[in-house]
Amino acid sequence: MNLDPIKEALLASYQQHGGINHLDGVNLPAQDSVQRLASDYMHLMFPGFFEATALTKKDVPAHVDALLSGLQQRLMAEVEKSLRFSQDADPAGHARTLTADALGQLPALRQVIQTDVTAAYRGDPAARSVEEIILAYPCVLSISVQRFAHVLYRLGVPLLPRMLTEYGHERTGTDIHPGATIGTHFFIDHGTGVVIGETARIGDHVKLYQGVTLGAKSFETDPTGDPIKGIKRHPDIGDHVTLYAHATILGGDTRIGANSVIGSNVWIMKSIPPDSVAYFKGDQLVVRPRRAKTSSPVLGDEYANWDI
Amino acid sequence: MNLDPIKEALLASYQQHGGINHLDGVNLPAQDSVQRLASDYMHLMFPGFFEATALTKKDVPAHVDALLSGLQQRLMAEVEKSLRFSQDADPAGHARTLTADALGQLPALRQVIQTDVTAAYRGDPAARSVEEIILAYPCVLSISVQRFAHVLYRLGVPLLPRMLTEYGHERTGTDIHPGATIGTHFFIDHGTGVVIGETARIGDHVKLYQGVTLGAKSFETDPTGDPIKGIKRHPDIGDHVTLYAHATILGGDTRIGANSVIGSNVWIMKSIPPDSVAYFKGDQLVVRPRRAKTSSPVLGDEYANWDI
Amino acid sequence: MNLDPIKEALLASYQQHGGINHLDGVNLPAQDSVQRLASDYMHLMFPGFFEATALTKKDVPAHVDALLSGLQQRLMAEVEKSLRFSQDADPAGHARTLTADALGQLPALRQVIQTDVTAAYRGDPAARSVEEIILAYPCVLSISVQRFAHVLYRLGVPLLPRMLTEYGHERTGTDIHPGATIGTHFFIDHGTGVVIGETARIGDHVKLYQGVTLGAKSFETDPTGDPIKGIKRHPDIGDHVTLYAHATILGGDTRIGANSVIGSNVWIMKSIPPDSVAYFKGDQLVVRPRRAKTSSPVLGDEYANWDI
Repeated sequence: MNLDPIKEALLASYQQHGGINHLDGVNLPAQDSVQRLASDYMHLMFPGFFEATALTKKDVPAHVDALLSGLQQRLMAEVEKSLRFSQDADPAGHARTLTADALGQLPALRQVIQTDVTAAYRGDPAARSVEEIILAYPCVLSISVQRFAHVLYRLGVPLLPRMLTEYGHERTGTDIHPGATIGTHFFIDHGTGVVIGETARIGDHVKLYQGVTLGAKSFETDPTGDPIKGIKRHPDIGDHVTLYAHATILGGDTRIGANSVIGSNVWIMKSIPPDSVAYFKGDQLVVRPRRAKTSSPVLGDEYANWDI
Repeated sequence: MNLDPIKEALLASYQQHGGINHLDGVNLPAQDSVQRLASDYMHLMFPGFFEATALTKKDVPAHVDALLSGLQQRLMAEVEKSLRFSQDADPAGHARTLTADALGQLPALRQVIQTDVTAAYRGDPAARSVEEIILAYPCVLSISVQRFAHVLYRLGVPLLPRMLTEYGHERTGTDIHPGATIGTHFFIDHGTGVVIGETARIGDHVKLYQGVTLGAKSFETDPTGDPIKGIKRHPDIGDHVTLYAHATILGGDTRIGANSVIGSNVWIMKSIPPDSVAYFKGDQLVVRPRRAKTSSPVLGDEYANWDI
Repeated sequence: MNLDPIKEALLASYQQHGGINHLDGVNLPAQDSVQRLASDYMHLMFPGFFEATALTKKDVPAHVDALLSGLQQRLMAEVEKSLRFSQDADPAGHARTLTADALGQLPALRQVIQTDVTAAYRGDPAARSVEEIILAYPCVLSISVQRFAHVLYRLGVPLLPRMLTEYGHERTGTDIHPGATIGTHFFIDHGTGVVIGETARIGDHVKLYQGVTLGAKSFETDPTGDPIKGIKRHPDIGDHVTLYAHATILGGDTRIGANSVIGSNVWIMKSIPPDSVAYFKGDQLVVRPRRAKTSSPVLGDEYANWDI
């Protein structure tokens, strides 16, 4: 069959519809490289977990050396591409500085990530060991990668942070924007369908189940109809809050107070005071104080006693 | 250990339970080949975005040549296998014709896909550039692959279209049946958990969030208990409709009128007039006219003002 | 840039935060090996479906021989690592016994898996052939892999079963714990966002749609605050039950009686009698007997007649 007319039509279409091609010689970060970046980063955060063969303490320094050098090279290359794309005046120089800055934050990141693993172990009766969590819980990947992407996001790197979190989204079904600010001891169980928006702020010791949305109510547009970027649109979640499966919290002014428990399938567009329990009971959203604490410190105790 | 008894039992089982083996020498489309097909197609639709190295305008003709030839060979092979499986009288000949027909539609598809990318950019305040959308928004893959699968579906190709969309589903969590008819400027944000059924019809400028279902209410069966295939079972969605997260619209007679906005978690099995807002308020589904348009043309304005 | 301070800080962090590294020379099961295991298993269950080239009946014995030997080697190696991790007294010896036991159950598993494929074909009007189901329906992977993981779970193998089901979760969005007990003829349509907990028990001929949760209400903790493991926390689902999209059933004492139909988005924490229809109508959960059976045996008939 003669493919020439199709080829000519496609080439003409590339000319006409500039919006979806990219042919001016400025290379973009490649999805494969971003996956490799994320993988190297995970190996560095969890030494001994993802290697094909056993890693002994003696091997670790050389192992870290190799991983860190590789990560530096790859990160610098992708950051430079991202900066060149956004017409940075000195992409190579800035890529070097930003990469050094980001890598310098890895040891602190690792401490926070350890709190996430601890939270998962203490938050799920099905977890038999910390090792099982690292090897088989999707939140370890989605949260750890978001924390690294958030570092790059705060440093002002374009494109790359979102590509990193989308890699996490693809593998886990959990979509956390790199802009979201997340405290320590964060646990997401199951994770499929979770969406956390760019301007969400999440406190410490927060626990989420599958399908939870921290989203926007709506957004404003400029006179040309394009959405105005950068406005606070997503909720704040206080410390020690638990959000059960498919809870939907919307709006930039919405704040879930500390120690509150939000029931499954609840849909909330207003703030909830601290120490509350919120659930739908027929024709109204019920928000009431949590009962006196029992001896068990686990959030969600009372949930067991709800009537429907 | 002696594996022979297990082997014998498995071989006997292949004889008995014919339904789940396929050993008669007619090869089926392979999942790996389908992935490769989808990947080549995406490269052709978005030149310069997914290559490892920069693509300049000068390189493009040769690049398109190579991609198009490869796509033709692979598509023809898989279509032929699909036709041979369904006992087509002339699988090789028909595969050639159908492949030529499908490839001939690529330039037009590319124009429609550009409208999808534009809709994503205008529909999400978090999007910083068109490039970010193409590189990091899952809807670009899920919708673009569905549009190609839909071409094959309409040409009557068995097996392959659904394998293509399932590849998109696996990577994005968005399950769009190849039979669904979709207008221009289609945007799905986040996408995890979205299900769009075979006989759904979607207008232009429609926007969907994560977890939206366009599903069937039930289905009829023939006297042997097998479901009757091909009946219209999924809803119609008018132009400029927005469906917020986890909205569920069911039934082949259900029609969401143009310019309507359907709230989060709403569950609808009846038609909604044009220019409506629909949401649950306690004990009833509230459907009311949208308020007078403000200066902002973005769907979902009013959603911000809802009381719950 | 000088990476030494970062390296030193990371090495110090590995010392301090022992919880998330694993450097004592005991190797853990590797994610790559687990994927390979799952893939070999699927090839063995569905001969002729996933091979790149056609498989004839004549080839099958040699094909099975090779797959089975490979599966045995790989399974034994990963089981041994898992046992060594949990300080088994004789990991190599026990790995041999447990592997033989698990492989011996493959022929019986294959019979059950065939009932799942049949259920999918009879349960979805969009399915055009059994082949389409095996090649393009995600439940084939998620359920089949869970059934194998469940065998290993019951044999007491640590780590590996959950890694296998997480592989299925990653590819399909369906998260079925290896501990869940599942009857014959199990069908999950679309599957994204489905969560089935460790102590759930599912009867025969059960059908689930996307986003269904069979979850826990809460859990008890020991005096140190760690959750108590192994308590029955997830519901029982009777034979011939259908659970529509996003239905959430919570609690270890909750039982959905046989032949019942649970509507979309319903949220249930109490038992439902057999032969019921349950749905939310405004301010209450409506549970009523199913209407007299029509000539069609398909579950969900009545769903079509619901008013909202």
